[in-house]
Amino acid sequence: MAEPQLPEPPAHLALGVDVGGTKIEVSLVDVNGRVVRAQRQATDAVRGPAHVIGEVVALVDEALHRADAAVDAVGVAVAGQVDAQGTVRGAPNLEWTDVPLRDELERRLARPIVVLNDVRAAAWAEWYHGAGRGMRDVVVLFLGTGIGGAAVTDGEMLDGATNTHGEFGHTTLVAGGRQCHCRNRGCLEAYCAGWSIAERAQDAARADPEGGAALVRLAGSVDQITSGTVAAARTLGDRLALALVRETGELLGAALVSVINALNPQRIILGGGVMDGFPELRELAEAVARAQALPAPLEVVEIVPAALGNHAPAVGAAAAARRLRALRPPREPVRGTAGPWPAP
Amino acid sequence: MAEPQLPEPPAHLALGVDVGGTKIEVSLVDVNGRVVRAQRQATDAVRGPAHVIGEVVALVDEALHRADAAVDAVGVAVAGQVDAQGTVRGAPNLEWTDVPLRDELERRLARPIVVLNDVRAAAWAEWYHGAGRGMRDVVVLFLGTGIGGAAVTDGEMLDGATNTHGEFGHTTLVAGGRQCHCRNRGCLEAYCAGWSIAERAQDAARADPEGGAALVRLAGSVDQITSGTVAAARTLGDRLALALVRETGELLGAALVSVINALNPQRIILGGGVMDGFPELRELAEAVARAQALPAPLEVVEIVPAALGNHAPAVGAAAAARRLRALRPPREPVRGTAGPWPAP
Repeated sequence: MAEPQLPEPPAHLALGVDVGGTKIEVSLVDVNGRVVRAQRQATDAVRGPAHVIGEVVALVDEALHRADAAVDAVGVAVAGQVDAQGTVRGAPNLEWTDVPLRDELERRLARPIVVLNDVRAAAWAEWYHGAGRGMRDVVVLFLGTGIGGAAVTDGEMLDGATNTHGEFGHTTLVAGGRQCHCRNRGCLEAYCAGWSIAERAQDAARADPEGGAALVRLAGSVDQITSGTVAAARTLGDRLALALVRETGELLGAALVSVINALNPQRIILGGGVMDGFPELRELAEAVARAQALPAPLEVVEIVPAALGNHAPAVGAAAAARRLRALRPPREPVRGTAGPWPAP
Repeated sequence: MAEPQLPEPPAHLALGVDVGGTKIEVSLVDVNGRVVRAQRQATDAVRGPAHVIGEVVALVDEALHRADAAVDAVGVAVAGQVDAQGTVRGAPNLEWTDVPLRDELERRLARPIVVLNDVRAAAWAEWYHGAGRGMRDVVVLFLGTGIGGAAVTDGEMLDGATNTHGEFGHTTLVAGGRQCHCRNRGCLEAYCAGWSIAERAQDAARADPEGGAALVRLAGSVDQITSGTVAAARTLGDRLALALVRETGELLGAALVSVINALNPQRIILGGGVMDGFPELRELAEAVARAQALPAPLEVVEIVPAALGNHAPAVGAAAAARRLRALRPPREPVRGTAGPWPAP
């Protein structure tokens, strides 16, 4: 007699959306963080938030209809500041201000939606499916054009009072030091982000034209030196570039001391374009942290590279939605909008 | 007809114990954090942990028997590093190493006991009954001989991976700066603690003997200048002392920028002997923070003085015990001890 045919277990798929200044990505993600299917299209940001939201709705609707299995949750990551109500307070690359994205999406899709900042979403992905899997205390730092991050402590991704917990790029590393793009001086970002590595290299090349000759030759002029120039020059063995990288590693290490002592994580995950371009920074920074942090938190902490790539925001939005959906009571579709932004 | 006599509602008292290098304090605390009755005695630390634990047991037993109402919970604050199992890993003033305090107390008192670090306990007190009452996102900083603290985020007091979350005194404020008592350079504690204010004042008086004359006169010699000397001199209008206080405020402000941006609290509570001696530091530091932190977290944050005094560790231990007791399953009294420390 044939075995009875049991129905397939539900796949527990979730949908993650990444809304950035240049593209909208919609990914169908399984419980292991694997992208089952993805679709992306250019963001037509100049046509305004109503248009972009319409595009997101259409893409999500299509993805929901195409999914073979039931989709448990939908999460949307946005390259901007998102408050606890899912309103995008500001998104420079999208030119959005006070857009009630969650309310709009819930109204139009008639289902609960989780909306979160894209850096936080990428941190969710690293925690749930990447280098922090299964851990209760994780700090994720992304060093790229800017520096952002997020912290999981005692098993919870922390939000803070205005949903902006984890702006580690804007912690003071050198009081009174280099001017940051924010209003503070001496931020971590003012030393270890892409733009600040470029500025430090330009300053160094101006101060030492002989030492900086290779950087200038590679870049074309002092003003055109980028962090990529520094990366290329250090590969060629250029001494100034190597010194800059070493100094960057030491400064990042001093920042990791703060993270270790203040936040006591099991793992610090380092990702982003700067880490991809200068992978040696992890070891340089770790050496400083091992020599200088407090013994108790040092006992357990590991400092590791990020495991996921460009899809992390979409994958993390799906993970966050899966988890947070359960914590929020189901709500009626919103009629009308809450914010000053006109509904489409 | 007389009203029927209803029994008094239970008072929900908890017992908080503060075990320090010089005294043991046992306080009966009501749900509002009011100390109903307190007893203290000198710590005979030289007789070793078994003796001190015996004294704690006797004091707690007595307090439990004298309490008119049922005592819900017992919490013990210790001036040392406490792990998640309630073992005191190190307590310099008590000269304790790896003392399984929670297990011992639970065995001998046959009830659940919460054991925690005294700074964390004082932070519990400020959160539950002091300047952070009713808030979900609070950072407490105590600036005294050293600098310690704790963070409540999203409604939970954070522990971290080794129970040492919140060592904000040992975050890097000036990379490569003044040597701290820990192994790091440029810690917040190396600038704004009692000892470091004294050292900075001594350095300043040596560098500028004329400007430092008043400090030296008050202290007796350069080496005897303390933070108290600086406090006295600035009251007399001494310019060097005033400059030191102003600089300390600016440095503390730069540290508050980090706390605001990274941890996004509703309230930062500043307490400890340095704040008592230099209350103007709060305003000086707040001015810097308001000018330099990120707009979103600044919108909500308040920077306020601590509301409670010396009893805070005992009061906070009681509060923590009341809350955490409910989170931990009741356990059998422990037979024998877990650690390398011999049982009494």
